[in-house]
Parts: sequence; structure tokens; C-alpha cells
Amino acid sequence: MREEKNRLPGLIMVYTGNGKGKTTAALGQAIRALGHGFRVFMIHFMKGREYGEFNALQKMGGLRIIRAGRDFFVDRDNPDAIDIKMAREGLAVAREALLGNEYDMIVLDEINVAMDFNLITVDEVLEMLKHKTENVDVILTGRNAPPEIIDIADLVSDIKEVKHPYGYGIKMRKGIEY
Amino acid sequence: MREEKNRLPGLIMVYTGNGKGKTTAALGQAIRALGHGFRVFMIHFMKGREYGEFNALQKMGGLRIIRAGRDFFVDRDNPDAIDIKMAREGLAVAREALLGNEYDMIVLDEINVAMDFNLITVDEVLEMLKHKTENVDVILTGRNAPPEIIDIADLVSDIKEVKHPYGYGIKMRKGIEY
Repeated sequence: MREEKNRLPGLIMVYTGNGKGKTTAALGQAIRALGHGFRVFMIHFMKGREYGEFNALQKMGGLRIIRAGRDFFVDRDNPDAIDIKMAREGLAVAREALLGNEYDMIVLDEINVAMDFNLITVDEVLEMLKHKTENVDVILTGRNAPPEIIDIADLVSDIKEVKHPYGYGIKMRKGIEY
Repeated sequence: MREEKNRLPGLIMVYTGNGKGKTTAALGQAIRALGHGFRVFMIHFMKGREYGEFNALQKMGGLRIIRAGRDFFVDRDNPDAIDIKMAREGLAVAREALLGNEYDMIVLDEINVAMDFNLITVDEVLEMLKHKTENVDVILTGRNAPPEIIDIADLVSDIKEVKHPYGYGIKMRKGIEY
């Protein structure tokens, strides 16, 4: 059963930096929100692969997940039309959700990277955040969060890589990275 | 159904720093692992409150959670006997799990703080990690991770607080902080 939503205005939260933990932190927050019966919408920008969490999360109610991208190299200076199209479609869906009343928390996973790679503009994202439904919490993840986004955010965590096993030659591992 | 466990040695992962996202990142990784059918054990040190994620996670299989602490102020220079006792019991349970074969991933939430507050010693934790079952992944969270732990870790993310809404006078909010 859905608990009564906190009446405080929703927070704009950003997880950025070059370290591991940005998407996983957003995912952990989504689980917390679901645990209180809140309705959560996750939009994965620039990702097309099926992640382990999808299998687990689909067993829970109250959650919708879409992927607005594909797993493919994007050239920052000359992004492919299909990548722009997918990111723009994701943005349109995000905008509709943020301006509506269907969700209590919306996770815009890797949207910082989509801005950094010029698939969508910072101004569009700012404009969307400024007009969002007041009580909705929104989480933006991805490295290189634009300063304008950090300015309007309520909470910003910068996750720095101190050590990473890739440097030791260990490949991506099932259950850890996806 | 449980998938075949990756044959690579398990990783020792640390989420530390003063920013928000350490426990939530560990929680997100636990969900990923569960999504692959892995068995996960989470031990919360120095926490007694029921968190939103518990409700949600209990609907999923493959997960065990215990709390080895209480929500109470701990005086670093003179910790209460009950806090020491609860942390030591948590450590004993963690040790048994890490040296056994029952779990694929073990999350030692806030164990860095338990060491920092002298409830358990760094040497005991190091000794436990050195003798752990090879394939088990272990995640240690909490600010002020000791340098000796960082030395032996495979992955370390330092989560820095750039902005935090507490500074704006906003209290802890259901679904975000617990």
C-alpha cells in the first residue's frame, strides 16, 4: 500500500564523478522509495544492455523502467543520429513524467553523460527540472554533471575513483557491473 | 534459479567519504547480485532503525539482512558496552559468513564507522578479509575507511559531499534517507 507522500518539495539529487557507485546509489534510493510504497520511474540514457537489477526489480511492484539508448560507442563531436533520437525520446518521456503526477521518484540515469555528449542540451534539462511537479524527487546520474545542473540541485555527491579493479586487468563481472 | 558464480576471485569493495550514496550504492549492488540469483547477506553495523529498503527487499529471495547495532549516539572516546557488544556480535557473524560458502556477496554496512569509533579493531577486520572464501564479494561502507583497509581493497570509491539539503534545514525524509 502506498504511504502518504511527504509534503516537502521533492529534491533534485545528482550523483556524479568518475568513481563507481553512481547508478547503484540511484538504484538503492529507488529501492528505499519502493519500500515505502512510492512509485518510481527509471529512465536509462545511453544504455541498452539488460542489467541484473532489472530481473530482481521486476518482481517488485511500483516500478517502471525504460532504456533510452543502446550500448554503442558515441562520438562526442559527431554523435550518431540514432543515439540523438533515442536520447531525445527519453527526454520527452522524462519531461512528461516530471510534469505529471504518476510518479514519486524519477531516476534519470546517465543523463549527465547524454548532456556531455551533446545528445540533449543542458538548457532543455534545466527547463524541465524548473517546471517539474513540486513533490517529485528526481535523481540525475553520470559523470561530468554540468555546473548549471549542480547549481540548481539540492543534493550533489561527487564519487571519486580511488581504486578500480579494471586497472588490475579484471574484466566486467556479472552481478557487479551489470 | 541461481546462475553459476563467476570463477574470478571475489572483490573487496569500499564506499567511503562524507557524501550521500555509500549505503545506497551497496544496496544497489546487492540488488544486481540478487538479480543474477546470487545469495546476499547484509550486516548493518551501528544501525537499528528499520529502513524502507527492508520492506521492499524482503519480497525478494536470496537475501538475508541483520542489524548489529542500535540508533544511538556513540561516544568515540568512551563507547557504551552495549554498542561494543552488538558490533562484536556482528563481526563474529560476518566472519563466519565470509569464511563459509553460503553467500556470494556480503555487505558490511557502516563497518568503517564501527572501526573508527573503536567498537571493533582494524586488525580483526583485516584478518577476516584475508581469510575470506575466495569467490565471495565483500562491500565495506562508511566514512573514514582506515588506510589499511583501502590498501587491501580492489575497488575504492570516495563519495564527496558537494551539496547536501540538511544544510538547507531540510529534515530526513521518508523514502530518501531511510
